[in-house]
Amino acid sequence: MILRERHLFGPGPSNAYPEATLGLAAPLLGHLDPEFIRVMDETSDMLRTVWGTENKRTLPISATGSAGMEAAFVNTVHEGDVVVVAVNGLFGQRMVDVATRCGADVIAVEHEWGQPVDVQRVIDAHPDPAIIAAVHAETSTGVRSDIEALGAAKGDALLIADCVTSIGGIELKADAWGIDVGYAGTQKCLGVAPGLAPFTINDRAFDRRVDRPRSWYLDLGMLGGYVGEAEGKGQRTYHHTAPVAMVASLHAGLTRILDEGLDAVIARHHDAGRMLQDGLQEMGLELFAAEGWRLPELTTVKVPEGVDSAAVRKDLLNRFDLEIGAGAGEYAASVWRIGLMGHNARPDAAALVLAALKDALGRAR
Amino acid sequence: MILRERHLFGPGPSNAYPEATLGLAAPLLGHLDPEFIRVMDETSDMLRTVWGTENKRTLPISATGSAGMEAAFVNTVHEGDVVVVAVNGLFGQRMVDVATRCGADVIAVEHEWGQPVDVQRVIDAHPDPAIIAAVHAETSTGVRSDIEALGAAKGDALLIADCVTSIGGIELKADAWGIDVGYAGTQKCLGVAPGLAPFTINDRAFDRRVDRPRSWYLDLGMLGGYVGEAEGKGQRTYHHTAPVAMVASLHAGLTRILDEGLDAVIARHHDAGRMLQDGLQEMGLELFAAEGWRLPELTTVKVPEGVDSAAVRKDLLNRFDLEIGAGAGEYAASVWRIGLMGHNARPDAAALVLAALKDALGRAR
Repeated sequence: MILRERHLFGPGPSNAYPEATLGLAAPLLGHLDPEFIRVMDETSDMLRTVWGTENKRTLPISATGSAGMEAAFVNTVHEGDVVVVAVNGLFGQRMVDVATRCGADVIAVEHEWGQPVDVQRVIDAHPDPAIIAAVHAETSTGVRSDIEALGAAKGDALLIADCVTSIGGIELKADAWGIDVGYAGTQKCLGVAPGLAPFTINDRAFDRRVDRPRSWYLDLGMLGGYVGEAEGKGQRTYHHTAPVAMVASLHAGLTRILDEGLDAVIARHHDAGRMLQDGLQEMGLELFAAEGWRLPELTTVKVPEGVDSAAVRKDLLNRFDLEIGAGAGEYAASVWRIGLMGHNARPDAAALVLAALKDALGRAR
Repeated sequence: MILRERHLFGPGPSNAYPEATLGLAAPLLGHLDPEFIRVMDETSDMLRTVWGTENKRTLPISATGSAGMEAAFVNTVHEGDVVVVAVNGLFGQRMVDVATRCGADVIAVEHEWGQPVDVQRVIDAHPDPAIIAAVHAETSTGVRSDIEALGAAKGDALLIADCVTSIGGIELKADAWGIDVGYAGTQKCLGVAPGLAPFTINDRAFDRRVDRPRSWYLDLGMLGGYVGEAEGKGQRTYHHTAPVAMVASLHAGLTRILDEGLDAVIARHHDAGRMLQDGLQEMGLELFAAEGWRLPELTTVKVPEGVDSAAVRKDLLNRFDLEIGAGAGEYAASVWRIGLMGHNARPDAAALVLAALKDALGRAR
């Protein structure tokens, strides 16, 4: 068998930090072992730092980012609650689906894809919603939205923020911005394999939670003991078997990030994204996301007229072992998504993808 | 930092096969990469072999075994359905909780812990239930139940079987036994880290499924495309980002098992369990599970009168880096659970745990 080593420059997963890979391969610990409890406690502490929160209920949920979305809604939506969802991409649409299944009366505030959330339209959609939800960094379009402004205007509503593609890559201040419930993924800017959903919920949201949510697996009332919330550090009660290898890997990845310094990591994402976006425009390509709202970690670029989008991606994969993403939804064939996230937020990665794309485009035309 | 290397002889996770550990550390693939699709297809094929099924809908669900339980019920329970659950331990109890949250009218058929399921009592509990559910290998008590007999007597009901601790360790024939929906875990006899729930559902159950289940993440209608069920092999549609490292590790673990031979692996579990159970009785200890229904992979043994159960476990962990499990529920202090599962189903593991326990008991008395 030959192992392929790919440059994962799509919308995620990204290549893991070497530290995170080593963490995966470390000897397994029992999920109730005092050594593992220490790993879990430290992981939650480091997650608080990257979230910008003091929330004691900050934990890696034992499934991928989309399960984090489900945990957010299933624990907070009471039957018939009005939930206003800002939809400016695929993940806003997914929130509508998930919230509806949880019994919400959903008001979807639709936006053109590629544009940020219009905070005023979202606030004006309903006078007194139970929940307002929005995506901080839309993975489908490469657009950032102003969660801070939404938090300032939310009134009595709870604010749920999807931070899957923002955490660890751009500024994120859950407490200062008024995020009541946030969920994320490990496989983007955190530079860890997919499989966990970093999650945080504040007391305000926890106090309003559903007593016995429809999901047992994602019931935050039971997950409290799982991370020792009730008992304090160093204590855990059994809920489900923690995915110990993934947690150890997240621990290693977060340690790496904090050793480098969170601000330095964010600056590294900024610089790599800038280099890529400048380079693409110098090649005569047009960026898709609205100017001023472009994510450095995930760049969307229009496929030039007459170029077969899928053929170029296939060529990059076959000749350069380099993955970029197709567009999402109706933009599948007309947009590419290029991620420089986590370990890949580096000048060499930006230089490589620019050179490879130039080469592949030369052949395709 | 010092890494601890533990002998994981509790009820799970067990130590992973070295092949599975190497699989975790392999370079990550994108979740839509053709190489990864091949890995996923082969993983599903190998899962069919260990499940004993031809079900095309056989996949590793992207969360731990308990999420497999939730997927089983959330996709099959229609509001108000009568669900008969055989309860002879903690995981039967959990089924009752999960099914109730899914809107079932649950009839729990309670058994004394340590005893197998009484098939006739379960069948007699209701004349025409929508679903009958039982645990094949009760992790809380170390007891096997006769799923084949339940399948033969189920009538028109769907049979849901929890095979978390049986898969890959004892005989399991999903199709021949009439299991309509089965779920399992990776961290027991499959010898892979926790984080995935091997799952299988036949056409009969799939045709009766809930159209739009309350869970988006576990919606099998959407997960079909995720494993290329609709499109055929080599094709996948995006649902959520697959936990690619965990899937690669499961692929490696299953390859190892099938290279050794499934029958040989099951025989190895049998022999290690026999050696352990004989040795414990020779030490004068009494087994907890009913004779004739004892799992070879997970042995339950009564804590001798006057011995501090937790102190012995702590001594084993501290001096021998050896983990055994406490009892579950009301047996927390009066029973130990000793697992020799997957990579640990070996004579050296049995010899070590017997020697270490003898030593620790000598100090404790």
